[in-house]
Amino acid sequence: MTEIKVAVFPGSFDPITVGHVDIIRRAAPLFDEIRVAIGENSQKSYLYPLQTRLTWLQDVFSSFDNVAIDHYEGLTAHYCREIGAKYMIRGLRNASDFDYEKTISQLNQIVGGDLETVFFISRPAFSHISSTIVREILKGGGDATPFLPEQIKIQH
Amino acid sequence: MTEIKVAVFPGSFDPITVGHVDIIRRAAPLFDEIRVAIGENSQKSYLYPLQTRLTWLQDVFSSFDNVAIDHYEGLTAHYCREIGAKYMIRGLRNASDFDYEKTISQLNQIVGGDLETVFFISRPAFSHISSTIVREILKGGGDATPFLPEQIKIQH
Amino acid sequence: MTEIKVAVFPGSFDPITVGHVDIIRRAAPLFDEIRVAIGENSQKSYLYPLQTRLTWLQDVFSSFDNVAIDHYEGLTAHYCREIGAKYMIRGLRNASDFDYEKTISQLNQIVGGDLETVFFISRPAFSHISSTIVREILKGGGDATPFLPEQIKIQH
Amino acid sequence: MTEIKVAVFPGSFDPITVGHVDIIRRAAPLFDEIRVAIGENSQKSYLYPLQTRLTWLQDVFSSFDNVAIDHYEGLTAHYCREIGAKYMIRGLRNASDFDYEKTISQLNQIVGGDLETVFFISRPAFSHISSTIVREILKGGGDATPFLPEQIKIQH
Amino acid sequence: MTEIKVAVFPGSFDPITVGHVDIIRRAAPLFDEIRVAIGENSQKSYLYPLQTRLTWLQDVFSSFDNVAIDHYEGLTAHYCREIGAKYMIRGLRNASDFDYEKTISQLNQIVGGDLETVFFISRPAFSHISSTIVREILKGGGDATPFLPEQIKIQH
Amino acid sequence: MTEIKVAVFPGSFDPITVGHVDIIRRAAPLFDEIRVAIGENSQKSYLYPLQTRLTWLQDVFSSFDNVAIDHYEGLTAHYCREIGAKYMIRGLRNASDFDYEKTISQLNQIVGGDLETVFFISRPAFSHISSTIVREILKGGGDATPFLPEQIKIQH
Repeated sequence: MTEIKVAVFPGSFDPITVGHVDIIRRAAPLFDEIRVAIGENSQKSYLYPLQTRLTWLQDVFSSFDNVAIDHYEGLTAHYCREIGAKYMIRGLRNASDFDYEKTISQLNQIVGGDLETVFFISRPAFSHISSTIVREILKGGGDATPFLPEQIKIQH
Repeated sequence: MTEIKVAVFPGSFDPITVGHVDIIRRAAPLFDEIRVAIGENSQKSYLYPLQTRLTWLQDVFSSFDNVAIDHYEGLTAHYCREIGAKYMIRGLRNASDFDYEKTISQLNQIVGGDLETVFFISRPAFSHISSTIVREILKGGGDATPFLPEQIKIQH
Repeated sequence: MTEIKVAVFPGSFDPITVGHVDIIRRAAPLFDEIRVAIGENSQKSYLYPLQTRLTWLQDVFSSFDNVAIDHYEGLTAHYCREIGAKYMIRGLRNASDFDYEKTISQLNQIVGGDLETVFFISRPAFSHISSTIVREILKGGGDATPFLPEQIKIQH
Repeated sequence: MTEIKVAVFPGSFDPITVGHVDIIRRAAPLFDEIRVAIGENSQKSYLYPLQTRLTWLQDVFSSFDNVAIDHYEGLTAHYCREIGAKYMIRGLRNASDFDYEKTISQLNQIVGGDLETVFFISRPAFSHISSTIVREILKGGGDATPFLPEQIKIQH
Repeated sequence: MTEIKVAVFPGSFDPITVGHVDIIRRAAPLFDEIRVAIGENSQKSYLYPLQTRLTWLQDVFSSFDNVAIDHYEGLTAHYCREIGAKYMIRGLRNASDFDYEKTISQLNQIVGGDLETVFFISRPAFSHISSTIVREILKGGGDATPFLPEQIKIQH
Repeated sequence: MTEIKVAVFPGSFDPITVGHVDIIRRAAPLFDEIRVAIGENSQKSYLYPLQTRLTWLQDVFSSFDNVAIDHYEGLTAHYCREIGAKYMIRGLRNASDFDYEKTISQLNQIVGGDLETVFFISRPAFSHISSTIVREILKGGGDATPFLPEQIKIQH
């Protein structure tokens, strides 16, 4: 009997971008279940409230059979153990991302009991897109539409 | 008839350094007009007030025929469109700068209607100088004179 | 009905190292079949002949149920299409690897009809090990045993 | 009276790619004259003969008013001085390119009498394209059409 | 007569990690005296109070003959001059650290009167460990024991 | 009784540059003896013969009390063990150097029995200088004088 392969795609999704969606679209066939999970940190402030971000995720991934939406507090590695996920999914946009992601993935193998991280490199059309950049555009009064999934409507 | 080539050199200039001046000195012959423009962000705090920074820029670039000083709020790409600038000038100090600048320049081509960014790599004598470093020196009670244009006098 | 997930782990394996084995050990549970495949290039010279390298791969992976050994000429993307593999597996050791691997993976999506590359970051104990380094040690008369799978015996 | 602004875009162009063309298209409005110049090195071997590469450049840039084709031997900085070019144009694809280009541009300011290098960052659609990659595809029997200007026909 | 070689190993040590200890263990034979010194910045907030961090350093390095514990305010370069230290010791974990450390070391040679920085590259077993990461684990309720010297007991 | 501290500064020195000299000048006070040692590899070709390079090193370092010149074949780690050197000295110019040097230093700790590598970051005035670049200038008929120690006379 084969074990069910569960993966977590963690993030703040403040807001979710077309880059996130592309990673999940590519990763989905590899796993039996993917949890797109918002990690909440009470010491950080967010541009959009948790409930808004959860609703956006629900809308965006409603057509994916094996994607579920969730949220958690504390360490991502603990959340993964709790729900029985042995994999994490991460996107890599550029070389600057690399050393940070390497550090975190090594940490998760220690703290998370051999939690394995699987990486996908962002496609060219998405490698300049991040939630940070989208927030800067929105704060500056710009039009972030090209960077957001069509299900998300944000006025500018 | 040739179109007038206008470029923007955006920044906080908190404070302006000899590194900034070197970039403008090298870029000046390529453009008909350069706007050295302070981007103001009401959510950020600065070490020096806007008026002081503007006066410094005026003093430092008074001998440049084709350099004007300005300030703006909101997205840099919007400011460029507003004043009819089709170019942005940016300095690159090291590989760590690269991925960030690449992201921003790609963004500006989307948000800014093909706003083109022209890069100059900092000369060795200036590649370790940034406003961030100068502020750290000043806060720590050090002498930042070697990093500041001669027109700027800051007591330590 | 679920499609069989086939992945290719391409390389010269001149020689195979403990780093390669660790990547396959971690990737094996994700795929139905993995082909560890030697890409032969008649214009390159190798330290060990193809037959030796194939035998080593057979010995090293004999205990893996879903790993098969193979070799090919020409583009890796063509080989993948030929055998019906929709995935490639690659290890990332450090930031220097990143930009090269990004380029190749984007290329494979164009040349290879959306061939997907899945990345694993090398664990700390293996991130300084490459076939190139092992060849340097062997040419210099050093002991490469710590870097080779136990099935490989190379005299020094 | 304004000085005529002449820039050199040096390379092997073995072969020219759509990435090269995009850089020149973006740089062309900034200069009065651009020389796309093949640097010949008798100690290197090329996939395509000099005459073929020159003809390709002629065909590709025939519609650009201010672009001329040339070739030279020896140091690029010497060639620039000889033809009175004060600028070099270079594309930057990724962070790996950066440190190399920084070294070369600093060298050219010493050897070339303050020869100035102006950088453009490759657009996402072109940042994975290099002549090296195109040669690999061609040698492997692949179809390089998506990476070549439409004027270039190479059979595979 | 040979001059006494004094080196400073500056940091916040909030908290000290096994990575810090490994650097000092390796650097200790090279110097006559090493000061492990906490740089206090009244504008920053720390997870552990200065006194706790000093006591930890005392405990951890009590068995090192040539290591003394200290703390200071203001620029590290000024502190070094004050105590007659001509060397600084720094660990480098990954390429992302490099450009920052290069900038700081060049700065210290200007501000600090040719203060020399000596670098050690972190060993693989420690290169993913930083105080920042340890604080994240502790805040998230995780077990940071594998990253802390045995003398440090922090409950989770 | 203190152990004598011996360090090796290995390289091809084809030719030696002012960058090499600066590293030794800065490292010399830290060690009792430094061996500047040419690693000969019979499979590589050099621009200058071994005897010329050795004579250059002799001339350049004749005024350094604790510097000796040597050459060796095989692994650097073996040479260090043979002469009782427990340290290697390496210069780091830029982030591109880093991952390579990290790999080699970790290797040397395994192959060389805890051989320790001490790094110095090149000063800005020297960070664009390498033997590779100097050879390119010389082959192209350029003047490499600014990059060579005054004791070295190479006609161009």
